[in-house]
Amino acid sequence: MTKKSALQIARAEYKPKVPTILQGKVKIEEGVATQSVANQKEVQALFPHTYGFPLLKFIADKNDSSSGNSAIASVAASVGSDKPINVGVILSGGQAPGGHNVISGIFDGIKEIHPNSLLYGFILGPDGLINHKYTELTADIIDEYRNTGGFDIIGSGRTKLETKEHFDKGLEILYKLKISALVIIGGDDSNTNACMLAEYYASINAGVQVIGCPKTIDGDLKNDMIEASFGFDTACKVYSEVIGNIQRDCNSARKYWHFIKLMGRSASHIALECALQVQPNICLISEEVEDRAQSLDDIVNYIAGVVAHRAENGNNFGTVLVPEGLIEFIPAMKALITELNDFLTHNATEFNMIKRREKRAYIIRKLSRENSVLYESLPEQVALQLTLDRDPHGNVQVSLIETEKLLAEMVERRLKEWTEDGRFKGKFATQTHFFGYEGRCAAPSNYDADYCYSLGYTTAGLIAAGKTGYMSSVRNTTAPAAEWVAGGVPITMMMNIEKRHGVMKPVIQKALVKLDGAPFKTFAAKRDKWAIETDYVYPGPIQYFGPKEVCDQPTITLRLEQGR
Amino acid sequence: MTKKSALQIARAEYKPKVPTILQGKVKIEEGVATQSVANQKEVQALFPHTYGFPLLKFIADKNDSSSGNSAIASVAASVGSDKPINVGVILSGGQAPGGHNVISGIFDGIKEIHPNSLLYGFILGPDGLINHKYTELTADIIDEYRNTGGFDIIGSGRTKLETKEHFDKGLEILYKLKISALVIIGGDDSNTNACMLAEYYASINAGVQVIGCPKTIDGDLKNDMIEASFGFDTACKVYSEVIGNIQRDCNSARKYWHFIKLMGRSASHIALECALQVQPNICLISEEVEDRAQSLDDIVNYIAGVVAHRAENGNNFGTVLVPEGLIEFIPAMKALITELNDFLTHNATEFNMIKRREKRAYIIRKLSRENSVLYESLPEQVALQLTLDRDPHGNVQVSLIETEKLLAEMVERRLKEWTEDGRFKGKFATQTHFFGYEGRCAAPSNYDADYCYSLGYTTAGLIAAGKTGYMSSVRNTTAPAAEWVAGGVPITMMMNIEKRHGVMKPVIQKALVKLDGAPFKTFAAKRDKWAIETDYVYPGPIQYFGPKEVCDQPTITLRLEQGR
Repeated sequence: MTKKSALQIARAEYKPKVPTILQGKVKIEEGVATQSVANQKEVQALFPHTYGFPLLKFIADKNDSSSGNSAIASVAASVGSDKPINVGVILSGGQAPGGHNVISGIFDGIKEIHPNSLLYGFILGPDGLINHKYTELTADIIDEYRNTGGFDIIGSGRTKLETKEHFDKGLEILYKLKISALVIIGGDDSNTNACMLAEYYASINAGVQVIGCPKTIDGDLKNDMIEASFGFDTACKVYSEVIGNIQRDCNSARKYWHFIKLMGRSASHIALECALQVQPNICLISEEVEDRAQSLDDIVNYIAGVVAHRAENGNNFGTVLVPEGLIEFIPAMKALITELNDFLTHNATEFNMIKRREKRAYIIRKLSRENSVLYESLPEQVALQLTLDRDPHGNVQVSLIETEKLLAEMVERRLKEWTEDGRFKGKFATQTHFFGYEGRCAAPSNYDADYCYSLGYTTAGLIAAGKTGYMSSVRNTTAPAAEWVAGGVPITMMMNIEKRHGVMKPVIQKALVKLDGAPFKTFAAKRDKWAIETDYVYPGPIQYFGPKEVCDQPTITLRLEQGR
Repeated sequence: MTKKSALQIARAEYKPKVPTILQGKVKIEEGVATQSVANQKEVQALFPHTYGFPLLKFIADKNDSSSGNSAIASVAASVGSDKPINVGVILSGGQAPGGHNVISGIFDGIKEIHPNSLLYGFILGPDGLINHKYTELTADIIDEYRNTGGFDIIGSGRTKLETKEHFDKGLEILYKLKISALVIIGGDDSNTNACMLAEYYASINAGVQVIGCPKTIDGDLKNDMIEASFGFDTACKVYSEVIGNIQRDCNSARKYWHFIKLMGRSASHIALECALQVQPNICLISEEVEDRAQSLDDIVNYIAGVVAHRAENGNNFGTVLVPEGLIEFIPAMKALITELNDFLTHNATEFNMIKRREKRAYIIRKLSRENSVLYESLPEQVALQLTLDRDPHGNVQVSLIETEKLLAEMVERRLKEWTEDGRFKGKFATQTHFFGYEGRCAAPSNYDADYCYSLGYTTAGLIAAGKTGYMSSVRNTTAPAAEWVAGGVPITMMMNIEKRHGVMKPVIQKALVKLDGAPFKTFAAKRDKWAIETDYVYPGPIQYFGPKEVCDQPTITLRLEQGR
């Protein structure tokens, strides 16, 4: 047994809140048949066996006269089942706080169906299913991991379950272990694949249900039925803690501008939530940059403008939050990267023969005029990164670009110009930071511990009811647990058809930051004040044992979205 | 009034623990005359008015029959004083959690001497004293800052108070504000200067006492009488929280080696404490590297060896903690930097005329053979950094060297060689991190909140007793508050004569990691096991409201030092 910290030991005792409705006997209420959010015909054609399912909601069952008082047992009883059930679970993609609690919720739920039910975990993600690597998750193991962060109970992986070979190979081990339900805990892609698996198993009458759970710290898997992806709450709170600490330092030393990059490649929910938490001087939102078709130059001018304005008040310090994906949302940068990808793929041999120190000049000569000018304006280090660090497909690895350093350097250059023409008289020194791994495996906040356990427990209910192709759904979580809603959402309902890597595919629509949504509008209404005044808020570390208002607050994003 | 987080509001109510002895009437017990730790004659000659003072300890005064029950009032009464007193306070150097509590402790203490006592804060460090920038710290202001992190109540600064001009300029404003005692909250250098100031004011009979308080997250200001510098506890706990989170991620994804640099330029206490907290695979200790006269190559081989060993067990992941100052403790690197500093100072004009891309080759030609070979072996980026980024004195800015990236890159190169000759068959991918600003301004842990408040309150006692040239001392803090010892230590007692920037100066001896001390020996006894097994501990965030064993533990370093 590994050594545990004092907090881990104390925290193991925490009993997550579940929807009050799931504390007594329930039955399933079916809504009307559903449609996909777009491309209904195409999605229906691809998912003939799992399309159009109704929304599901657990409601109190006052007529159930069976003994016991377990919600999940009562669901199983309602469909005439009281046999043990074997369930498999997979953690897919990047880590997110609370994954272990989803698994504990599933475990506790299926043990209520029958004490002899078994839970198997597939090792290191989808690969475990394909390669038949698994472990039985016994009560002892589960108890070791309750309310802990990380995915280390069985590990995770990024392999995409999408081919018939994968599905068939998986089925072999599912049959061998007599697993009749598989739970895939993952983000939008993994849930899309969960639905493809559900569809395939249904199409061949395999007798295996597939249920998904919404995970991602990025917060971009949400919609009318899935109000949050788990882990977003905890990760944002950890980032806000350290950003708050940096802001307090910034406000004490009064001599640095801190450029802080945060995870969020496809959407800027994390940066926005952190901004609402800590009230920085500047926060960039990728979706807005794209919407306004801003150039890198526009962004640099905006930041430099705030720096200059603050300097006039004697404040040569500040904080800038930058979402990881920013670069790809700048239309001109996107065009440059596209041309670079294309050019480097077609001229790889020639490019590789050119001396390192001459590569930059070579690229400047070869690109189209517009892209060449932009490329030339980039700091040397970034320019090199854009041509040297390519993935196996020859594409530029945008995620390696240190956007926080790029911006700090370009703003510095701009301010030097402004100093020369007298527009800037302040000082400008920078520090840069990137926070990602610091938050993905934190121990879950009370919110994520509760939400995840409830998602897992609800999943067991959907399994007990014999459902497949559904995502577990727990809603209204900014209200007290008595008002939480638990049920299932057909995964096909969230899908549309999008071009991904050049191919049209059915995918779950990603939730980007809505520029007309309450979280962004709240931020936009305050940012000019935050830019000039120093209105920093210091959230401090996640607390587990203190007053409710300290320990039990959902994200500001969710509260604003739900008008609370 | 600025907006506060829920935690800040709840935490404002916390009442720090103080030594039980200071909860009733006390008097001062004087020990025997003291000596400086070394160079007694020289130190005595430099500090004729403040040398040789006795150790001071507050002990219960059962014969005091005055009304009230305040420790500080009873001290004042014992020297026949019951008048209001005006006190000034300066925050000097880098931020450390708990500074605001030192100030609250001073405030509460001097208000017990007389309700009309006043506390003035000098703005942005020693500059505030020299330039006469100050603010009165009223009860309203103090209450806003109790138990908060940061130094933003009055700001801090790095100007060194060391010339007669500074001292005289300071005296003007001290006289104007009728301040008869000045408190300097700072690290070893600032406390050395506090003592010089005390000596000078004593020598001219200025009538101003000077008291120091031991601050630094680096933990290198400690000795037999000062058991900890404040902020070390909180900062290490914040770093351990995020390192723990990274380790959980590392152990879940199982695909990265994380190289994590931590603050601590002169000493490796932070890295050592974090290692004891989180049990990483590798932690480098600068003092050991120097003691063993290790080369950069030795260190790279050591890390690569652990990586290879873990890979044999299928574990292509791990964590490496690196103290910020490492480079300067490698004798060969120190020699290289010394030659570079010397060479670049004398050949600045020629060097500046050489094209950027040819600078590296130029340096390789010019350096002595031994240093040239080492310089050539460094990654290009680091080599450039060593010659381009120099401070105003022409010296290499070692603190800008990204040691974590340097090591990651050199280990990768070494493993490539080993792959070629078949000694390494694993995978090696890295992530790098640097934690510093994340912890310096965190809200103080219970330990630091208690310790700092007690230091401040004790300072008020030393002021009441008319003492000068002392550092406030609170000891035995791993025991319950009833056993804490409070008093004062003559600053001259901690001094010796050292060469600093080429000049022999009286300075407080820096406390380095002792290789025969319990903290290092505990680490050294376990590190081989930690290297190969995965024994990560996940401390989680600092807790303020939970069980005692979670909220009230001092650092492992201090517990080991005190044998608890």
